[in-house]
Amino acid sequence: MTVVSVAQALAGKFPEGGEVTVRGWVRTVRGSAALAFVNVSDGSGFAPIQAVVADGLSNFDEVKRLTPGCSVIVTGTLVKSQGKGQSFEIQASAVEVVGWVEDPLTYPIQPKPMSPEFLREVAHLRPRTNLFGAVTRIRNCLSQAVHRYFHEREFCWISTPIITTSDAEGAGQMFRVSTLDMANLPRDGAGNVDFSRDFFGKETFLTVSGQLNVEAYALALSKVYTFGPTFRAENSHTTRHLAEFWMVEPEMAFADLAEDARVAEDFLKYLFKAVLNERADDMAFIAERVQKDAITRLEKFIEAPFERIEYTDAIALLQKSGKKFDYPVEWGLDLQTEHERWLTEEHVGRPVVVTNYPEHFKAFYMRLNDDGKTVAAMDVLAPGIGEIIGGSQREERLDILDARMAQFGLDPAHYQWYRDFRRYGSVPHAGFGLGFERLVVYVCGLSNIRDAIAYPRAPGSAEF
Amino acid sequence: MTVVSVAQALAGKFPEGGEVTVRGWVRTVRGSAALAFVNVSDGSGFAPIQAVVADGLSNFDEVKRLTPGCSVIVTGTLVKSQGKGQSFEIQASAVEVVGWVEDPLTYPIQPKPMSPEFLREVAHLRPRTNLFGAVTRIRNCLSQAVHRYFHEREFCWISTPIITTSDAEGAGQMFRVSTLDMANLPRDGAGNVDFSRDFFGKETFLTVSGQLNVEAYALALSKVYTFGPTFRAENSHTTRHLAEFWMVEPEMAFADLAEDARVAEDFLKYLFKAVLNERADDMAFIAERVQKDAITRLEKFIEAPFERIEYTDAIALLQKSGKKFDYPVEWGLDLQTEHERWLTEEHVGRPVVVTNYPEHFKAFYMRLNDDGKTVAAMDVLAPGIGEIIGGSQREERLDILDARMAQFGLDPAHYQWYRDFRRYGSVPHAGFGLGFERLVVYVCGLSNIRDAIAYPRAPGSAEF
Repeated sequence: MTVVSVAQALAGKFPEGGEVTVRGWVRTVRGSAALAFVNVSDGSGFAPIQAVVADGLSNFDEVKRLTPGCSVIVTGTLVKSQGKGQSFEIQASAVEVVGWVEDPLTYPIQPKPMSPEFLREVAHLRPRTNLFGAVTRIRNCLSQAVHRYFHEREFCWISTPIITTSDAEGAGQMFRVSTLDMANLPRDGAGNVDFSRDFFGKETFLTVSGQLNVEAYALALSKVYTFGPTFRAENSHTTRHLAEFWMVEPEMAFADLAEDARVAEDFLKYLFKAVLNERADDMAFIAERVQKDAITRLEKFIEAPFERIEYTDAIALLQKSGKKFDYPVEWGLDLQTEHERWLTEEHVGRPVVVTNYPEHFKAFYMRLNDDGKTVAAMDVLAPGIGEIIGGSQREERLDILDARMAQFGLDPAHYQWYRDFRRYGSVPHAGFGLGFERLVVYVCGLSNIRDAIAYPRAPGSAEF
Repeated sequence: MTVVSVAQALAGKFPEGGEVTVRGWVRTVRGSAALAFVNVSDGSGFAPIQAVVADGLSNFDEVKRLTPGCSVIVTGTLVKSQGKGQSFEIQASAVEVVGWVEDPLTYPIQPKPMSPEFLREVAHLRPRTNLFGAVTRIRNCLSQAVHRYFHEREFCWISTPIITTSDAEGAGQMFRVSTLDMANLPRDGAGNVDFSRDFFGKETFLTVSGQLNVEAYALALSKVYTFGPTFRAENSHTTRHLAEFWMVEPEMAFADLAEDARVAEDFLKYLFKAVLNERADDMAFIAERVQKDAITRLEKFIEAPFERIEYTDAIALLQKSGKKFDYPVEWGLDLQTEHERWLTEEHVGRPVVVTNYPEHFKAFYMRLNDDGKTVAAMDVLAPGIGEIIGGSQREERLDILDARMAQFGLDPAHYQWYRDFRRYGSVPHAGFGLGFERLVVYVCGLSNIRDAIAYPRAPGSAEF
């Protein structure tokens, strides 16, 4: 018995006329009194394989009673398919029914169009659908490409702490992590909660970013990246925000903002090429059923060089656009989504890197430019998605960093370790952050970011 | 200016006699009045590259004042080295000092042996040492190999929820995640903490395992794995336990316990081969300075087939061993570390997979064997490390699962989604878990698991 994956069988990896066994779940069954066609999916690729079962089979009666979702082991001869759109099929010599579906009429995953909203209610079963099978394989393809991209370029993967004591950006709502008994909190003499009796002997939170920690590694190993979960407790339950999401954060020593933007562009194009090359089957489905231009927009993304525009020039362009915006356009104010969309979708028509933002609304660690008014920050904006990457060159000059921390009201004692790198062989360095679920949402043409994560709104997940 | 990594320059990836530029941090400086030898490390590999600087250089005075930790950009001609143990060196035509070390005498990272204990106090700088540079590159090599192994075998990476509402095993202390104001907790009518006003509208915790969630994906996509952080709030501050650690958890549909053990063996051997092939430089250092048999024990691990022993036979062997143990050896009691060590180190002398443990001290989801007394669980034990992998075949029969849940006092309503897979095309399936930091500790010969993680005991990390 040669067990093969459906994807490999369909891809012609096994000799025609040979005997193979596939294992999976029934997608559809149709046929006549004398012949049954059973489509079996094992999730290895988009397409199921068709098993042709003749009534000579000893358990043909059982086969005819199969319904979507039943699990089977099919053995037979691999032959070229006469059917349209499939390369191979199996002439079954044996079909073992491993598991039936209890009450097929109420089985939630039926072979018909189902809305993402409904499927979020049965999130534990949705990986069995065409859409979420495709999303999961595309997500996997992207994550493998993330690791491969950096590994090929001598970056080291670093897992920075999830439970932390500090807020990486001095901003962003954090989740508290605690083992204190909420019903009976320990108090100190002054009546305050006594966190010295908490698990770590102090107040702890979930990380909002691994950046500051990973910088420590960049300033020893030169090229590093994180790829791990981060958390934001902002109470914005929109279709674009998650409380828990994975982030990719590369950090490079001896890199300036121009190099940062170059890597960001190269990296995104690498990821999209990987998806188009490796998941053509799933992307074809996405283009057919979810987002018509899902493939062509990635192709355009790959072909075109990203535009570079300074924030100051972007403001001038927006002011001259003649377009009426809801939010004011003025030097010193942050760009809103409507401004970003106009820039990338209407004005440039391809991805844009906007650089050198006013210092007062960007983080303390971003490098102050010589004009004293802007910092070496960048946002990568793209049509159809908006901001996809944010990054900056970091402030490597201790005196200026100290002044910036004072300006932001941060205690230098708390950042002593971070200051150390400016005292001990300081170097220019830069990095960026990419929200992984937002990337998946874009590639898969989804409209709700909850459809890009594993398991929302089901027992076992808090995210909803 | 061709910027190259030190690793590639030393590996002969660039033509002898060509001009190259390397960027990094000074490890050591020695020399005479007329010549300086500056060792520069950029972390791309274990060895630094030597730059030979002659007094003709315009800033030779500066070069002579370099101390360990200073950052430099060196340009020059790549030539074969006359020195022992290095392939190439650079005859410098320019040395740019990018960053000095403020007060070199107090710079914590000196070119002398430093204990891991001391380095844990300056964890943010320890990646600049030989040991922690090596550990970080080995850790990266292992993580890349984890992803590559599964990707090559058609497994999908799944990121299961970190913030959860349930405890995967019905055991294990959990960290609470909350945004409630601890100083002013909301109360319901009965005076209890009102978690409906917490961020997710209910009580939430950090996950202890992604297994139950990832099973949902295995039962649609056949072969899946997690590689993400998990959390245990057990108050055991030993050198072997972490509150926050990364776990690898593959899960395979249509797999039984024997297949589970086969994959576990194949997987571990693949990881160790990757380290020996790809990080020979770092492993040579580990063998020289940390653990003499670090390389040979991995080689032995790869060569020998793992032994298989049933728990019942293991108990008999232990009882006949004539060895005096601190803990009792009796059928029905769990194996202690001393028992495991005797089995793998003294009795078998290579890795052992112990299978089929008594059901009453294993988790509810493990498959009950036909004897009604044992479950299809396995522990992989290895000399020098003890238990490295734990896994099981899962209970796929709904009636028996329900009976087991009742036995463990678990509410079936809470596990309805998990029960669904036994109602809808149930299949045998199996998986295992590997603690990633424990693996790193073993490969690197470390004695404290805190030396395997990024950044313990530093601001930004709660783990200590």
